[in-house]
Order: sequence, then structure tokens, then C-alpha cells
Amino acid sequence: MLFTKEEYQERLRKTRERMQQAGIDLLLATHPANMNYLTGYDGWSFYVHQGVLVSLQDEPIWFGRGMDANGAKLTTWLKTEDIRPYKDDYVQSATKHPMQSLAEIIREKGWERATLGLEMDQFYFTHRAYVELEKSLPKCRFHDANLLVAMVRQIKSDREIQLIKQAGKIAERVMKTAMDAIEVGVRECDAVAKISYAQIAGTSEYEGDYPAIVPLLMAGKATNTPHLTWSDRRFQNNEAVILELAGVYKHYHAPMARTLFLGTPSSWIQETARVVIGGLEKTLEYIKPGVTCEQVEQRWREAIAGSKIVKESRLGYSYGLNYPPDWGEQTASMRPGDKTELKPNMTFHVIPGIWLEEMGFEVSQAIRVTERGCEAVYNYPRELVVK
Amino acid sequence: MLFTKEEYQERLRKTRERMQQAGIDLLLATHPANMNYLTGYDGWSFYVHQGVLVSLQDEPIWFGRGMDANGAKLTTWLKTEDIRPYKDDYVQSATKHPMQSLAEIIREKGWERATLGLEMDQFYFTHRAYVELEKSLPKCRFHDANLLVAMVRQIKSDREIQLIKQAGKIAERVMKTAMDAIEVGVRECDAVAKISYAQIAGTSEYEGDYPAIVPLLMAGKATNTPHLTWSDRRFQNNEAVILELAGVYKHYHAPMARTLFLGTPSSWIQETARVVIGGLEKTLEYIKPGVTCEQVEQRWREAIAGSKIVKESRLGYSYGLNYPPDWGEQTASMRPGDKTELKPNMTFHVIPGIWLEEMGFEVSQAIRVTERGCEAVYNYPRELVVK
Repeated sequence: MLFTKEEYQERLRKTRERMQQAGIDLLLATHPANMNYLTGYDGWSFYVHQGVLVSLQDEPIWFGRGMDANGAKLTTWLKTEDIRPYKDDYVQSATKHPMQSLAEIIREKGWERATLGLEMDQFYFTHRAYVELEKSLPKCRFHDANLLVAMVRQIKSDREIQLIKQAGKIAERVMKTAMDAIEVGVRECDAVAKISYAQIAGTSEYEGDYPAIVPLLMAGKATNTPHLTWSDRRFQNNEAVILELAGVYKHYHAPMARTLFLGTPSSWIQETARVVIGGLEKTLEYIKPGVTCEQVEQRWREAIAGSKIVKESRLGYSYGLNYPPDWGEQTASMRPGDKTELKPNMTFHVIPGIWLEEMGFEVSQAIRVTERGCEAVYNYPRELVVK
Repeated sequence: MLFTKEEYQERLRKTRERMQQAGIDLLLATHPANMNYLTGYDGWSFYVHQGVLVSLQDEPIWFGRGMDANGAKLTTWLKTEDIRPYKDDYVQSATKHPMQSLAEIIREKGWERATLGLEMDQFYFTHRAYVELEKSLPKCRFHDANLLVAMVRQIKSDREIQLIKQAGKIAERVMKTAMDAIEVGVRECDAVAKISYAQIAGTSEYEGDYPAIVPLLMAGKATNTPHLTWSDRRFQNNEAVILELAGVYKHYHAPMARTLFLGTPSSWIQETARVVIGGLEKTLEYIKPGVTCEQVEQRWREAIAGSKIVKESRLGYSYGLNYPPDWGEQTASMRPGDKTELKPNMTFHVIPGIWLEEMGFEVSQAIRVTERGCEAVYNYPRELVVK
């Protein structure tokens, strides 16, 4: 296992503490990152219904598709009898639903009167899943436990920070690979193929993993939006290229955004880079335990005051262990109204991306909150690269 | 655009026909493949709530996060006024929800008494999304439209088949790359880095795209389960390696599974390969318009009768245009009870995977149903490769 048995027990203890505070005596974790966090489970099986069932006393139970039970045996610390597969005729069926099978397990364990916590706004918990549980467990009460495990994940252990820094080493290589590969006349897809190679090969000491977000690459006019991917278009002279990439180790992320300019940069992008990078640096200097997310964002706005830069979207968010479609944790965002108080070993991706109607600019830094401030989880120059 | 305006209109026409049959006058498509299919929208923004709203008369409306609106303008055929972004403070907020913003659009259009079709068991439609719509639209009626658009997608146009075959050309290269890269002593991650490179670089004529499922690679003992990914473990002598990989072009998939053996194959795997490949070939010969999915599966079982092979999971499924986490379409499965009648230009991934307690074997063929039978969308030898 990647973590000690004690670390998994500590995660469970914190999860149960939050369950008790919320009046929940049974929790269904369906988000793949939460399943991994609690049990170690790791497989690309999240396109079918599955989950981890956590009670206040008993050992956690993995439930999922039959063919994935051996994967659960290989990747989790759970006892074999707590790995509970459902039959294949429950998969994408018009007449059966995997949550009916989960309800049987819950009844068998005598939990049919439980107050059941569900991740009600997570993409791996559908409305139908809720309806089936409600129908099959008429005596249960259902509570929203949307971010319950994510809130535990928010503060990393030292071992997790170590993994994030290893991901950071990969991120440095990945971004350098991108900057080297992108040239006028090169196809976008050929540059991204090299980026993906670097993400997966990792370093000579350890492998890279698949990112929760594929390489995002926007060139020329498309720099006005952040979430597009590549085509076979060739890079042109006098255009910007925005990259948002991650290094990933054992599903722990180190995300990074940078902007490259091929040719002679416009005065707009030079000035934007100067203001935004300066603003980012002042913001990073401000980050320390005790300040809140909204105060950090306020510091950013002060730092760029007087410039023409306007940023309406959030400045940053909590990140870490994750699976597609997002490396963000959804728990804390650097924006007005978010009063999350920073604590040591929280991790944030601070990403002041600017997207206007005709162009954009991105730079970012993934950080860890330390005892007295914050530290970068990778070292890579933030300047606008001109090539 | 990748397809003609007429092709998009035809997709809408078929969607509206199914809406009328189901008594639905407004449809919210939230699955990224359905959003792409109806409008062309293409962005890695499906980690926030978004969708396409289809009424019986008006033009479709894209709704999503503010920063993705420019991406919608770049990738869809929609009019600018039908691209309706929500503000960033709706994103992963404790107090606001993007579906409240969608409800405002629905009220503004005068659709507040509509019968609204929702994709109730799709991973991009959460229970909370349903609850928010119900609260914000008390006069609406809600119908399950889970597979409504997916059923339209099930029968491909000739242009779509062309894209799948282009993906097939990439799949051939990807699998050859894998077979060449895997050797005793090589790290799994280095082989998968090459596989991913081949998937994204595509061919000299056109790019590859990101697969809806990352390269799946199981070696040695892990061949007893299908959905694991790589590590920095080195391939060993006398072990099997199972690969499930896709070629992808413009989000159209051509999935393929093959098994490789390093060293001297055991008699179990040789015999299993012989029976399964023979059974797959007899099954493919049987496929033609008019037969049902369950009949195809029955033919497979007859073909392997008398062997020791037992397969409890479905034999195959519909595939095509897709986004993570799955290239399957959820509409038809080759298994007992599925009475879907095969029609020309349906596409299936026929994958007789065998997973025992200690080992496994996989081979597959992605096919298109033709006027009189079926055709392979790529050509790659099915034999167990011994190396």
C-alpha cells in the first residue's frame, strides 16, 4: 500500500468524526478520489456505479461491478469479505440498478434504518442512484454529505505532500517538454503527444499517472477560453499559446499554467504578463495560516489595482488526489465570500487566468500552506516565454 | 464544423421526434457526448454543471460557465445569443447552484410549465442538479430522458462511420506501438507513454484525440481484472499482458483489446486464446441486421460450448462518440434479455474478456453493422502475441 494502515485509519477516524457531527451513521462515498482516499481503491471503473460504504463501527465495504472485485482485492487494504461485487446484469440495465444491490447489502448489515450520507452533487452520484436508494430503503433517512470526505482530504498528511512534490518534479519536466516542443509549423497534436509522454513516463525513479484533466492547449484566437484541447492545426508566427498541464504521481496532482509567445509579443500580452505575474507573486507572499480564502483574493485585487486587468472568476482552488474530470477538490475557492481559513498542509492552485474576447493569458502556481507562509510544490519560471 | 449544418439539423429532428413520442417538450442534455452531438460543443468543462437545452421549436441553447462561453462560440454552430453563460460565483458554491441559473433561462423563455426531460442516470447529472431544478421550476414536470439522445447517437451517419474508421487507423498504430514497446525489463509507464503518444499524435494526415478511457494495461497477476492502469513495475518473463486501448479521432472511438505473452505461454492461455478467438470469429460471422443483441450473445455461447470457458459479463456494447469516463453508449449490450435489433451503421465493441481468480485473457473487435453483415473498423491480428 502507498500509505500505512495507520494513515488509512486516521482518514477513517476523521471521516467518522465528521459523520457524527452531521448526524450521519452510514456514508456512501462514490467519488473515485474519496474511494481511493479511504481504501486505496484504484481502477478506471468509475463509468459504472460503485462506492465505499463507511459505518461508524464496522470496516468499510467496497461495492462495485463483478469484474472489478479482483481489482479491489489488489489495490485496497480491505478484507476480502468486505469486497462486495454486483452481477453484470445490473450494469446499464433497463430493469435493474446497482443501487438496488447496494441496498441489499445495507439491509443485510442491519442498517436499513440508518441516516445515510450521500455525495449529492458529485458527478459520480446520479439522480437515479438517489431515487433507487430511496425506493429500496424506505426506512433510511438521507443526508447530504457532498463534501464530507473532501473536507478531510483538504488537509494533506506529510506523506501526501511528499507525493504532491514528486508530482511537482514531473510537472517541471512536462512544462519544459511543452516549451521545447512548441514551435512555428509544429502540429498541436505532436506537441501534446510529447507532453502526454512526459506525464506518463514520469522520472527515472517513479512513474507518472494520468491527469484528471488532459493537457489543455489554446493557441492564437482560442487563448480567449481556458478548456479547449488540441487539433492538427500548426502553430503560427506571432501567436500566444496557453498551456495548463499537471504532473501526477499516484493520482496526486501538481497543476501548472504557463503562456508562451511565438514571435514578437504584443504590448497587451507583455503588459498583462507583467501585471499578472507581479500580482501572483504579491499574493503568494501574503498566503499563510490564519488568513481566509477571500482575504487572499482581496490581496490579489489590491496587487493589480490601477492596471487594466479585470478577473471575474475565482483566483484559486484546493487540489490534490483526484480522478477525471477534475483535479480540484471543490472545498475551497479563493474568491469573495469564501471564509475558509488557511491551515498548514492545505494545497492550492493559484491561477490568475485572464480571458478577454480576443485573447488571454495564464500563469499559475501550485502551493502548500506551511507553518508560516506557503511554499511552491515545483519550481518553474513564471515569465511569458518568448520563442 | 466537422459535420454539415444539415447533419446537425437531422440529429435535432430525430431528437425532437423522440421527445414528442415521450411527451417531453423541453430536453436538457448534460452528457458531454450529447452536447457535442447536438451542437458541436467541445471543451474539457464537464467538471462544472453545463448543458444544452432543446425545445421543440426554438434553436438549442448552450448553458455553461462564463469562461467557457468563448469556447462554445468557437466550437458550436449556435447563434451567439443562444450561448448563455453563468457567473463564476455559481461554480462549486455553498449558496448558489448553476441549475438556478438554468431555471432563470427557462422562465425567461416562457417554458416554466414545460415537461422537461432530464438524463437522470448520467454521471454529469447529479441528484442535487435535479433537486435545484425542481425547487426553481415548481410548475415544470420532470421526465426521465436518460438515453433519449444516446438512442439517436446509436445509429451513425456515413460521415460518423468515416471518422470511426479514421480512429481505427490510429488504433492499428497504437496497438502496434504497444506490442513493440512491451518487453521484459521495460517499465509499464514507459510503454504506456509511447501508447499515449501514438494515440494523440495520430497519423501524418490527422490528429488523435484523448480517449474516453485511458490505456488499460494489466500484467502478470493483475490480468485477473480489466480496469487497472500502469505503474513503474517492469515487465517480467513468463507473464501475460492485457491491453485495452482505443484510437480516437474527433472524440470518435475505435476500441481494441489484445493479449501479449512474454516468454513461454502456459497451456491455459494458449487454449483460452484458441477458444475465445474462434468464438469471437464465429460470432462476428453471425452479426447482421435483424438479429438481436441477445441472439448474438447466444451465438457466442454456442461457439464456445464444450470448452471450459465461462463468461458472465456482457459480450459487447454500442460505442462511438464519447468523453471520459466511457466510450460505451449505454444503449445496447450483447447479453441475455437485450432485444435490441441490429441495424445498419450501429457500431459494437465485441469484447469476450475472461477474468479468472489468477489470470485473464482479452481480445476484441470493434465493428460496424453493414447492410448484410458486419465489417471491422480496423484490421489487426487477433492472435495471442508471444514475444
